[in-house]
Amino acid sequence: MALLKNAYLNEKPEKEILKQRLKEQEDLLFVNQNKIKDNKLPVVVLVEGWGTAGKGTLIGNVINNIDPRFYKVATFDMPTDLEKRKPFLCRYFEALPEAGKFRFYNTGWMNEIVMSRLDGTMSDSLYEKRIASIRRFERQLTDNGYLVLKFFMHISEEEQKKRIDALKEHIDTKWRVNEGDIWQNKHYKSCAKIFEKYLEDTDTSSAPWYIVDAKSEKWTELQVLERMNEGIDIALQNHSLAVPLLQNTFPLVKMPKLADIPLDGKELSDEEYKEKLDKLQDRLSELHNRLYRKRVPLIIAYEGWDAAGKGGNIKRIAEALDPRGYEVHPIASPEPHEKSRHYLWRFWTRLPKDGHVAIFDRTWYGRVMVERIEGFCSENDWKRAYNEINEFEKELDDWGAVIIKFWVQIDKDTQLERFTDRQNTPEKQWKITEEDWRNREKWDVYEDAINEMIAKTSTKFAPWHILESVDKKYARIKALQIVIEELEKKLK
Amino acid sequence: MALLKNAYLNEKPEKEILKQRLKEQEDLLFVNQNKIKDNKLPVVVLVEGWGTAGKGTLIGNVINNIDPRFYKVATFDMPTDLEKRKPFLCRYFEALPEAGKFRFYNTGWMNEIVMSRLDGTMSDSLYEKRIASIRRFERQLTDNGYLVLKFFMHISEEEQKKRIDALKEHIDTKWRVNEGDIWQNKHYKSCAKIFEKYLEDTDTSSAPWYIVDAKSEKWTELQVLERMNEGIDIALQNHSLAVPLLQNTFPLVKMPKLADIPLDGKELSDEEYKEKLDKLQDRLSELHNRLYRKRVPLIIAYEGWDAAGKGGNIKRIAEALDPRGYEVHPIASPEPHEKSRHYLWRFWTRLPKDGHVAIFDRTWYGRVMVERIEGFCSENDWKRAYNEINEFEKELDDWGAVIIKFWVQIDKDTQLERFTDRQNTPEKQWKITEEDWRNREKWDVYEDAINEMIAKTSTKFAPWHILESVDKKYARIKALQIVIEELEKKLK
Repeated sequence: MALLKNAYLNEKPEKEILKQRLKEQEDLLFVNQNKIKDNKLPVVVLVEGWGTAGKGTLIGNVINNIDPRFYKVATFDMPTDLEKRKPFLCRYFEALPEAGKFRFYNTGWMNEIVMSRLDGTMSDSLYEKRIASIRRFERQLTDNGYLVLKFFMHISEEEQKKRIDALKEHIDTKWRVNEGDIWQNKHYKSCAKIFEKYLEDTDTSSAPWYIVDAKSEKWTELQVLERMNEGIDIALQNHSLAVPLLQNTFPLVKMPKLADIPLDGKELSDEEYKEKLDKLQDRLSELHNRLYRKRVPLIIAYEGWDAAGKGGNIKRIAEALDPRGYEVHPIASPEPHEKSRHYLWRFWTRLPKDGHVAIFDRTWYGRVMVERIEGFCSENDWKRAYNEINEFEKELDDWGAVIIKFWVQIDKDTQLERFTDRQNTPEKQWKITEEDWRNREKWDVYEDAINEMIAKTSTKFAPWHILESVDKKYARIKALQIVIEELEKKLK
Repeated sequence: MALLKNAYLNEKPEKEILKQRLKEQEDLLFVNQNKIKDNKLPVVVLVEGWGTAGKGTLIGNVINNIDPRFYKVATFDMPTDLEKRKPFLCRYFEALPEAGKFRFYNTGWMNEIVMSRLDGTMSDSLYEKRIASIRRFERQLTDNGYLVLKFFMHISEEEQKKRIDALKEHIDTKWRVNEGDIWQNKHYKSCAKIFEKYLEDTDTSSAPWYIVDAKSEKWTELQVLERMNEGIDIALQNHSLAVPLLQNTFPLVKMPKLADIPLDGKELSDEEYKEKLDKLQDRLSELHNRLYRKRVPLIIAYEGWDAAGKGGNIKRIAEALDPRGYEVHPIASPEPHEKSRHYLWRFWTRLPKDGHVAIFDRTWYGRVMVERIEGFCSENDWKRAYNEINEFEKELDDWGAVIIKFWVQIDKDTQLERFTDRQNTPEKQWKITEEDWRNREKWDVYEDAINEMIAKTSTKFAPWHILESVDKKYARIKALQIVIEELEKKLK
């Protein structure tokens, strides 16, 4: 309860001093925007608060001091029906600023939660899940170098009433009074309770709340600018600092090492294959309809050695699906606009709607394989990523998704055979590049990384499945069987 | 609620596999104890849980794998009357392990809180204060390189009943049944609620809770050893990593820079001085009695330039106090056993009982002055320290202490005069060393550090007071006045 009562960081100064301090802070922000740009610091400014507290006005005043190329404002209302079909964090993740820029959230993830609490549509257990998600989300942002500034604009019950009445009085401003604001004012005390609980539940050391005394416009701006400039100063000092790794808190399934997985005899005759393929694809088709009807999202992630047979495997799954209900995402190196955001951003923005299927041909696990081995990210980045990826998949699980992760496994000799075949067959030559040969030389380094990845990210809610693919037919049938099994479990 | 329900990280394996994994983990812990020693990693193992869950047995089993030189077990009950006269975290802080060693807490700070919640002696607002303290405490530990492992040993209501009955049955074990355990079992559900709330409230990313399925002894040990070994692995990777700085959340008082503090004319005639001194010392004597009666702790912290007159100033305060009720702590460089602990440890262990006075001649601010400037700690260490010190003083404030921080200010010329006088006066020569002259050369570097320190640690609950001490008499009178004023404010 302490957060709203007596929470303002500093006392309102006298008029003249306020004016002078405001000028100082405005000038400082003007300087800081360039530092942010030069240091590629992304800044998230979350503005929440009471109705009529002046969130829009505040943002307007603050951005007046920033070059328009350096900021964007995102305004969020309650989620639309379409937005409701994605994980609730999705739209906030999508709106993340690029490195070197500000993003203002004119209400963000808090508003959605507290509103659903107020109208009674969110259960206690869902609320707790959401709080856990938000804490992970905000921590991941700060761990990945985002500055996260959270402001709650506070006004008293009387002040809110006064503002609503004043707006109502004039024909020109009447339209600005919102039914929600009136309702809030009538239920001020119960709203305050829910607000306070949320503020406490999400007040963390790396992304603390600032309660802003929003009674007067200039004073509001001063408080926010002082916190912003202080925050930027701290964030610049933290920039490019490694972040401590966290203890694992996700339940893990014990997995074998790649070298201990027998590949011999994992094969099928052509007849067996065809017979099984037909049957399984029919079954998957049926399940796809049910999935669609029950609005369950399905995410299939493929990783594996080069030439292990991912493409053909994906094809056999996709053949069984209604093309209106799935998408295959081939994942190459990130584009510049993707690179300048959280490394999971390009996956968050490729999630399917519920009832739909997304198949990823290579995935977010690039972080702990190619990016690790080729040095595309820092050691701290990939070491942190195991937990961050588990957290990402936990969001998908909370959302209700079926998550299936395949490692397509072959041995080194098989790869050589297939590489040589590709090289020697004109119509397959496009499938083999210099890079494939270079990667092959690093087989052992990759194998270590893959073993670590499978050990650390085989959570109970998203375990890895190994597809033995020396005989591609065997791997395809096994993949279909696993997908069907997982869907049946979920849909029963 | 999710924490207790279904919270175990992994599933209990079959007997043979359990045995094998246990052996692996025991061997690993044996190896890890040396890594801990070599890397000077301090490890806090907090064991909480239901009565009869087997906390003692577990600790016994775990320490069997550790060389006795590397661990200690601290057992805590509810605080004694004497312990209640210190900040509640004091005894836990005192028990912190040295670098390179394990410290097991056979129940720790959780137990004290939840028990007071259960018997209804702790209000909601005090509970919230405690939670905030504990979160800061645990975060400070991990930020300062401690590995903090928190285990909650969980058994069901039925299991607890069974254990109590079994103990009661035999004359040899009857004495081990505790009234508290019986009470707990009778009120299992309400206890569970309070436990769960606490576990949720203190489940942080850097010091998460592990819920241990404590039904069988071997399985309990396995779960704990697996978490310990994983935790040690993570902590060793984090070792000597810088930690991100946090945004400030404490209300600050705006302070002038040293250069802007006028020193001219801040002087008193001998007569004025004597008259005031007598009056003020009498008044302080009276207040000391009241302080004692009302059990308010008083902490006076002195920092200032060499030869600024700290000693004489302290003397004038001390003269007015009953010698049974105060202690002066001259602070020199830390001893080896102090150096191997959290840098605030030697101050936590020197706190007065309530109703008593502690005067520190040099303080914890050494971290951001001499340690910063002489490189006795890392840049990250001293940059983090502003917030850590504010948090420390917040604990003192929460405890009810009056905290008075004096900066004794002189100019460079005055210092030179006094140094020269000391050098030339045989009975004063002990007061001047080579180091004083060396420090004097770094005056400007110190001045910058002091300005930063005063700006960042003048919190509303523990602001700095400047004592202009070119005329030492003036400074002494001002110090007495401030102490009296602050005490009157508190005692009125």
